This record gives sequence, structure tokens and C-alpha cells, in this order.
Amino acid sequence: MSELSHIASHVQSVASAVAADDPIRESIAQAVRDVKATTPLAASFTNFVTINLVANAQLASGGTAAMSFLADDVIATSAISGADYVNVGTLLPFYREALDRIAHAFHESGHKWVLDPVAAGIGTERTAILTAFRDVPPTVIRGNASEIIALDAMWGLADAADDDAAVTRPAGVESVDEVDSALDAAVRLARHMASHRADGTAAVAVSGAVDLVTDGRDVYRLPGGSALMTKITGAGCSLGGVTATYLAVADPMTAALAASLLYNRAGEAAEARAEGPGSFQTHLLDALWTTTPEQVAGSPIDRTSVR
Amino acid sequence: MSELSHIASHVQSVASAVAADDPIRESIAQAVRDVKATTPLAASFTNFVTINLVANAQLASGGTAAMSFLADDVIATSAISGADYVNVGTLLPFYREALDRIAHAFHESGHKWVLDPVAAGIGTERTAILTAFRDVPPTVIRGNASEIIALDAMWGLADAADDDAAVTRPAGVESVDEVDSALDAAVRLARHMASHRADGTAAVAVSGAVDLVTDGRDVYRLPGGSALMTKITGAGCSLGGVTATYLAVADPMTAALAASLLYNRAGEAAEARAEGPGSFQTHLLDALWTTTPEQVAGSPIDRTSVR
Amino acid sequence: MSELSHIASHVQSVASAVAADDPIRESIAQAVRDVKATTPLAASFTNFVTINLVANAQLASGGTAAMSFLADDVIATSAISGADYVNVGTLLPFYREALDRIAHAFHESGHKWVLDPVAAGIGTERTAILTAFRDVPPTVIRGNASEIIALDAMWGLADAADDDAAVTRPAGVESVDEVDSALDAAVRLARHMASHRADGTAAVAVSGAVDLVTDGRDVYRLPGGSALMTKITGAGCSLGGVTATYLAVADPMTAALAASLLYNRAGEAAEARAEGPGSFQTHLLDALWTTTPEQVAGSPIDRTSVR
Repeated sequence: MSELSHIASHVQSVASAVAADDPIRESIAQAVRDVKATTPLAASFTNFVTINLVANAQLASGGTAAMSFLADDVIATSAISGADYVNVGTLLPFYREALDRIAHAFHESGHKWVLDPVAAGIGTERTAILTAFRDVPPTVIRGNASEIIALDAMWGLADAADDDAAVTRPAGVESVDEVDSALDAAVRLARHMASHRADGTAAVAVSGAVDLVTDGRDVYRLPGGSALMTKITGAGCSLGGVTATYLAVADPMTAALAASLLYNRAGEAAEARAEGPGSFQTHLLDALWTTTPEQVAGSPIDRTSVR
Repeated sequence: MSELSHIASHVQSVASAVAADDPIRESIAQAVRDVKATTPLAASFTNFVTINLVANAQLASGGTAAMSFLADDVIATSAISGADYVNVGTLLPFYREALDRIAHAFHESGHKWVLDPVAAGIGTERTAILTAFRDVPPTVIRGNASEIIALDAMWGLADAADDDAAVTRPAGVESVDEVDSALDAAVRLARHMASHRADGTAAVAVSGAVDLVTDGRDVYRLPGGSALMTKITGAGCSLGGVTATYLAVADPMTAALAASLLYNRAGEAAEARAEGPGSFQTHLLDALWTTTPEQVAGSPIDRTSVR
Repeated sequence: MSELSHIASHVQSVASAVAADDPIRESIAQAVRDVKATTPLAASFTNFVTINLVANAQLASGGTAAMSFLADDVIATSAISGADYVNVGTLLPFYREALDRIAHAFHESGHKWVLDPVAAGIGTERTAILTAFRDVPPTVIRGNASEIIALDAMWGLADAADDDAAVTRPAGVESVDEVDSALDAAVRLARHMASHRADGTAAVAVSGAVDLVTDGRDVYRLPGGSALMTKITGAGCSLGGVTATYLAVADPMTAALAASLLYNRAGEAAEARAEGPGSFQTHLLDALWTTTPEQVAGSPIDRTSVR
């Protein structure tokens, strides 16, 4: 962030707990219910490390899964999938061209998709792939703070942003954790993505000790979850996959909130029974299956406006 | 199925329970015993989503596993493997040429293999790969009803079939479930495959609520199993892999029956203890390990002749 | 081994139990502690079958994981990783060139890495890849006996070895198990690798009923572990990955010993609770997490000199 944008900062509105009867809670509950009722297909182009957990998490959450890597295959499948999940964790030589074709096809058809910019900033090929998404952007981005910050830099949004876009950090308040360090970047990314969608909706989810979800106007903070999430591979990836599952039946903000909240509640339930990371993963999949729409929607949620 | 073939239909023989002393039961028990006694190698060219579960299921059933994707590697390994498993779930650009070489090499050496035509009908590359297998066909096919129907259509077997080949559905009886909708296709595929094997044996297994296995002359229906199989990824793929494990020690029909029955019994045992899809998968692998040859061979089995 | 080298054999020193206060035990305990305290990154270029278990085992042991396949990506990541793990189990067409670039880059920067020569000897492409590592060798090799023997043959070390290098088998003692059949090869490989490292250190670990670890001067034998390790896929691969995790904080011999001992202790703990291979894998990951530095370092260890 340039010095100028710091100078131009406005005070962010005070964060407040989302009320029990706030409409967002019913939207979240409805998304969870709709997935269980309709088993929507969310297709994935994802890394080889956690591809199995992504599919199993989508199934355990109530959806269905299909994975493919050929542009031909992915684009054909998008005709029957409600949303796609794209994760750039493990790259092969042909991915740059394939993902470019896929992103353009999704953009032209208006197909919704979630991007997981894993390891953004490492490797020239990954940077080329992620940079090329700028003008045909995803509907939702889910990543950790450093990935969100790196993607924002790749897309040059800080430089291009007007003053309002750069002023999302509470004045005089240092980032309370690593997630908040990505707040400006997340807001800029969400606004950029929304400006490229016909319906003007988009969302960015930053995963961490307290998850942050924003559509560029409101910022939601979601406390809770389990530290054991960092001791299994694919907690973040599978959260991204489940976000695509919810995106198949809901708007971007609702989908991102529902998925992150489900993961926090399921993570807590799994940790309570786990004896280590092996049993934690087993219990996590069970808990994705058993956690109710009411438990997800009844979670603690804080909201701040950055309009 | 054309109207003509409907008109030409003959009444299928009445399905009847396979007797306790039917020789097929001893063949099945022997296959299960032989795998546990000889730990045969079944090699796989399979998708990235469930490759780990395929290998673990083969090991838990008593066999050993080796996975590879280079034609060079696969063909070299086939010299020491009893059978191969080929699954077209996730394709890479070089697969079409590699799988063509592999299928021809298997055909020339008479090497037995199981094809899992995952997502048959989706994507031009997959269709090209599957179509090319027509004249160098596998020994066993395992798929769900829609995949079996799609493959039958790709191979043009309905058009080429003589009257007898097209008349396998009980007259006046609508398909009782989705599996039965693939009965004609399964019978045609099995007959086509058998006609390309030196020993004239082949089998097709259609997985569903009631599994169906046919060699083109007899049709076996296998009730039971667990609905949780559809809530983990790779239940079908790993069943295909275990079918290859049994095929390493038995004829195609026995192998397909033994594997499907093992999965039904293990699925029931796993469901009885599962608290969700995570623990179901863990219990399933344990149950593949602990289910006895007698439990597999003593399963309920119905048989109908379509000779 | 040629007849000449048999004739030239010297008597190997008598194996003896490593004392409780032997410095190697403190080195091992310190490596286990350092991993838990510093969560080092070990990056992997590994096969698709067990890539998930490798990552989860590294995390459960206290480290972190990153997997990639593009040379660009792997070399960029090596700037922030303490060591790398390379496994040639499942090959793709571009691997030969990528791995050649990677091995040369690691050699030039002195970056430490573990090679897992899975299926060494099968397939011309794998042989070409492994042969090319001869002059830019890894820091640690972990494999089973047949793989170690095959790699030694590929590198032509038996022919090139001087008399001393070929005389590591106890005179008049037949190999007590398959692992010991690889003793000569392991010693030759370790000496060859050490001669290519600036600090002259290297190690070879041969996994089996009794694991064998050597740096070319001392031979350690590590009894125990679980036979169920052979009934899940990836026990060996994930041991290789965890060896890289320890290599990020320790010398090659200490890293190889610590990882193999951790696996033996965790395997025993997992077997005690397992009801089959499914629950064994879950318990194994839990036990990698809960096994203490003292339990690892306090393991039974035998040592023989082959200097």
C-alpha cells in the first residue's frame, strides 16, 4: 500500500456481532439445506496432493464432485456443474494454456468459479497463470493472507485503486493477526471481481485463526475452528472445494460464509474427538456430514462495513 | 435400443437364487483365498482423485499394487502383473497415445485388464480414448449404468448386434432400477469382449443399488451393500481395482463377482460402524481386510440366463 | 558382487547395541525436537499415489510440506525449504528433463535432498532418470533392498569400487533377510554420494523387517516396526518424506535414523490399536504426532563398523 493510500485512510465502521435474525443467517442456512437437498455438482481442477480430500469434503457436505484437467473436459463438464473450483497448487506444463482457455470459457458463459491461489508468488509459471486471470476473474477467491496479498499485487490493484478502495483498515489499528494484513487486498480483489460479473457479486475469503470474508462492501470475521486444520494437508483446499459446492446454489458471499462457517464448526467437533491429525481428518469428514444448517448459520459472526 | 430390437425381444429366463452348493460359489471363495495366499500384483493406470484408495483397497483385499502412466512403464510392469486396471477419470494430454499403445500391447500379449470408463460420454478426448478400445477391448468392464450405456453406444454394438444380442431385458418388465437400464448394453459389451479373447471369456459389472454382472450368457444380480459408498469418492474405482486383483487369479466372471460381493459385504460392515463418510472409508478398508472368503462366497446371488 | 570381491572380503566388526549414552541418541532426539520446534519445510516431487500421505506424515511429524513438479517451481521453492524429497514412483513424460534440471540445481547450490528410487529397474524412462542422478547424487537414499541393489547396478558402483568398498558383508554370514542383501550396495552408494558432497556426509536407508542405515562407515540396524506397514500404500514413501523433514534440521545419518526409528515406534503403536489397514493408517498419523523425541531416541539400535 502506498503512503498516499495510508494518508487517505478513513475510519472503518465499528465491527458488530451479526444479530440472530439477520437475513444473512437465513441465507447461509438455506445454502446448507439446498446442498443437502439437491446434491449439486461442483467440478474441480485442483492439485494432486489434496484432490481426494477435496472430493470427499464436497461429498460429505452434501454435494457431488468431478475432477479434470483437460480444458476440453472441464469446459464440457461446466455445462452440468453449478460451479467450479480451480487450485494452482501443483502445476503441469500444459496448465497455463488450459487454465487460460478455461477461465475465458467460464467468463464468456458466466459460469461461477472459486480460485484458490495456492503458493501465489512462487514460480514464474504460477505467476503467469494467476496474472492471466485478472481480466477473466473468478467469482470467489479463497486463500491465506499471503496468497491474497500476492494476488492483489500481481493484478496491480493497489496502484489502480481509487482512494476509497484503499482505506479498509481501521485507522490507527494494527492488524490483529495475519488475516487482517490481507484486508485491503481482499477488498480490492472483491471489488475488481464484482466489476467483471454481470450481477456485480463476488467474494474473497481469507482463511486464518479468524477467517475474513468480504464482498468489497461488508467484511465478515468468523472466529473459531481448530488449530489441527494446519496439521493436515488440504484443509484450505477442501474448504475451497466446498465453497464451490455452496456457490452452485448460492450467491458468492453466502457461499463463502457458509463454507467457512461449516469448516469452523466441523473443525471444532473433530478436534474434540481427535487423538492426532490422522483421526482429526476422519472426524472432520464425519462432522462435515453431520453438522446441521442451524449449527452453521447460528455461528458467531462479526460484520464491519467498508462501503 | 431400436424399436426393432424391442419387437424381437424374447422372454428372459426367470431369475433364481444361486444355490448354496452352486459351483460358482466355490470359484468365488477360491479366488478370495488365492488372493490372500499369493498377494498377486495388479497394476493400475488410474485417475488422480482415487489412486490412493485403489492401491489401499487392493492391498487390504490381499493383493499388491503398482501405478504408472508411461506406456513404457505400464507395458514393462505387465510382464510381472497378473492383470491391469485402467481408469479414464482424469486425463492428461499424452494419455490418448499412451493408452492406445497399452491396449494394443495387452491385446497382443493376451494380458488381462479391467476398464473403468469413468465419465464416458463427457469430453472429446475421453470419447476418442474409449472408442479406440473397441477393437482391443478389456477383459472386464466395471462402471455405473450410464457409463456402460455410453460405452456401448460409442462402440456401436446395438447397431451391429444380431437379434439375440439385443433381447436381454425381461419381456414386459420395466427396468427396476438404473442398473437394469444398462442390461442390454452390458450383455452386448460382454459378448463383444469375449469374441476378442482367445479363451472367449469376459465380464461386465454394472454397479448400483443392486449390482449386475454378466458374461453375456448369464446375468448375476447382487443385492446389498451400503448407500454410504456414494458419499466417498472412489468406491467404484477401488472396486474396479480389486476386480483386477481377483482377475489376476481367476476368470473374468468369477473376478467380477468376487470383487462386487466383497464390496457389498465390506460396505455393510463399514456402514454398521460408521458415523459419517470419513469413518466409513476407514472401516471399509478394515472390512476389506477382515471379510472372509466364506462371507464373500456365501452372499445372496440371483442368476438369470440370457443365452 | 564379483567373485573377486568375495575373495577380498574382510571380516566386518561385530554388531553391538548402541549404548544409552551414545552421542548418536542425543543427535536423534535433538533432530526430533528441532522439527517439532521449528516446523521446517521439506518440499517434495513425488508420486501421485501417496503424495497425500507424504504431506500428512511430514505435518504429523512436525514439519511442513509443499509439493511441485515444474523444475521452475521446485527450484524456486528450494530457496525456502530445508531439504527436498524426490520419488520416481509415477512418471510423466516431462519428468526426465525436469528432474535432470532439478538435480543439477540442487547439486550446484548444495541443497540437501532425499531420493526414493521406487521401482528402480522397471521401465526405460525411470532407468534413464535414475542413472542421470549418478553425478549429481542425493544426500540420502531411502528404498527397499531391491531398489538399492538396482540403483547401485545402474550407477556401476560395484565395478568401480575398490576392494574395501566391496567388503561390507560379515564373512561367512549369509544375509539374514532381504535388507542385508543390499548391504554392499548401500555402503557403495553412501560412499559415492558422500564423495560428491562438500561436507562429505551422506546416508542410505534400506527399509525392511530390520531397517538398515549406513553412511558408508557405520551400519545401523533398527529392529521393530509393524508388518501392517506393507498393507498400506505409502509407508515407505512417507518415511522418505519424513526423512527429508529431519534432513532439513540434521545431518544425513541422524535424519535417516530419526525418521526410520520414528516410523518403527509409530508403526508399533498404530498396530496395537488397528483393526485393519484403514485404521492402521489413521493411528499411524496420530502416532507420528504423539511419539516423543525420547521414545524415538531410546529405540533399540545395533551398530557395526564397515570402515
